[in-house]
Amino acid sequence: MFKKVLIIGCGLIGSSILRAMHKKKLSKKIFVLEKSKNNISKIKKIKSNCKFIKNINNEISDVDLIIISTPMSQYKKIIVKLNKFLKESCLITDVGSTKKNIIKLKNKFLNKKLNWISSHPIAGSEVSGPEYGNKNLFLNKWCVIIKEKNQSSKKFNLLNKFWKKIGSKVVLMDAVNHDKIFSITSHLPHLIAYNLIKTAQDAQKIQKKDLIKYSAGGLRDFSRIAASNEIMWRDIFFNNDNIIKAINLFSKNLNIFKKIIQNKNNKKILSRLTNSKKVRTQIVQLKQDVAKPDFGRE
Amino acid sequence: MFKKVLIIGCGLIGSSILRAMHKKKLSKKIFVLEKSKNNISKIKKIKSNCKFIKNINNEISDVDLIIISTPMSQYKKIIVKLNKFLKESCLITDVGSTKKNIIKLKNKFLNKKLNWISSHPIAGSEVSGPEYGNKNLFLNKWCVIIKEKNQSSKKFNLLNKFWKKIGSKVVLMDAVNHDKIFSITSHLPHLIAYNLIKTAQDAQKIQKKDLIKYSAGGLRDFSRIAASNEIMWRDIFFNNDNIIKAINLFSKNLNIFKKIIQNKNNKKILSRLTNSKKVRTQIVQLKQDVAKPDFGRE
Repeated sequence: MFKKVLIIGCGLIGSSILRAMHKKKLSKKIFVLEKSKNNISKIKKIKSNCKFIKNINNEISDVDLIIISTPMSQYKKIIVKLNKFLKESCLITDVGSTKKNIIKLKNKFLNKKLNWISSHPIAGSEVSGPEYGNKNLFLNKWCVIIKEKNQSSKKFNLLNKFWKKIGSKVVLMDAVNHDKIFSITSHLPHLIAYNLIKTAQDAQKIQKKDLIKYSAGGLRDFSRIAASNEIMWRDIFFNNDNIIKAINLFSKNLNIFKKIIQNKNNKKILSRLTNSKKVRTQIVQLKQDVAKPDFGRE
Repeated sequence: MFKKVLIIGCGLIGSSILRAMHKKKLSKKIFVLEKSKNNISKIKKIKSNCKFIKNINNEISDVDLIIISTPMSQYKKIIVKLNKFLKESCLITDVGSTKKNIIKLKNKFLNKKLNWISSHPIAGSEVSGPEYGNKNLFLNKWCVIIKEKNQSSKKFNLLNKFWKKIGSKVVLMDAVNHDKIFSITSHLPHLIAYNLIKTAQDAQKIQKKDLIKYSAGGLRDFSRIAASNEIMWRDIFFNNDNIIKAINLFSKNLNIFKKIIQNKNNKKILSRLTNSKKVRTQIVQLKQDVAKPDFGRE
């Protein structure tokens, strides 16, 4: 499918792409640009014939595809280098979790002759690093490709094909809608999980009790999400401007919930709790989660 | 261990106790009082020689142990019946999730000659009903027994032994501390999950977009908890007066989080996100959750 591919940043997502590409034989040559020595030694254990490079330089001037899977805060300096060394025929994509900021950055700094079409595979984990990568990470998962005016349809089709080859279900969105949707289905849940764990830590200090010991009643679920990579999530929270609106909507609902409890409003609370159930059923039907109770955990 | 036991309310928890007791041969005779015909037909399929009764009456006057596992809102009318038919030698326990209210109710309405020692096995699921019960539900899970003044130490030892026999790790607490601890580790997480799902439902209406489809990025985890039984959780939210304090602490933290994001305060956000990670590590070390990434889900 490709002659030469470059993966920039090879953590959980980058290494999963590497594994999937190797398995599906999607490129004759795969270069990996990874700064962490620790990660490099882990990537060397992955079954793939990737070649490590230390910098963006002439060696990669003729690659067909570049996949940027570093934290988003590194994109700007990567763009500057790409401008310097890349041929026009190359397709660039990224896997960042917010899109308005990336499109803006790209439009401002990337050489206009280069092709960048942004992607967002909806896959991940609370763990990070190449050792946790998985060739099947994208299997039957959504991958959003960001639509823009004046995109090369040839490059677009190529990217579409690429994600489908490694197992994703592709969906098109513009950056604005992408950021709105994922502010609710991903960014707010993570923020709320982080905030709940912080609250439990505070309560532990206030109560002077060993609370964490008794986490099996619900808290443990949130602790998983709240263990996600801090650099990635800082970048997301700082770059999706819909998150403030999402927090405000959540807070408004929380205040109403508080009043329902204070007034012991039986009708209203039962209506809330019953309605929530429907979402779980829907999520399981849509194969967005496993059907087993308790995630089949025990 | 017992001659005659009565389980009142035989849903997920009651039927798990029934299964565990049958497996461990903890009683010669087990009576089940269950009002739902649908549940009764499901319980009949469970391997146990339980006998169904339709009402609390003379038939159960000589049981050794009664386990109440109905929603807490039914306790009062159960107590009235128990007063009428029960011998003094019987031990009564319950599995309710809040304790101050139960102790108050019991002290007010239960015949002073009867022995009620309250329990709270920290086990459950988002699914409810006897078909989801499991003889191993309590295995290596905490079970809180509520300490009170003037408890019969003989009865207390018996109850302690009972929970241990069906696999629990027993811990003693007074009702006040119990309610404080579980307001944070269980009740607040459930309330927050319900509130997040409600917020996603609202956002779906506001955005006029099919959000739920993209739940794999985090929302799906909350939808599991928010699918929990509405009667059980109404009773918990209405009866743990610590929940309002917990909501306020959560809201205070959420407002700070919002400001950190608005000010793009790099140091503060990294400190928050990094600190949360420690809790996950602790929870896994304490065997309060599985060690596998993503709950070993896929």
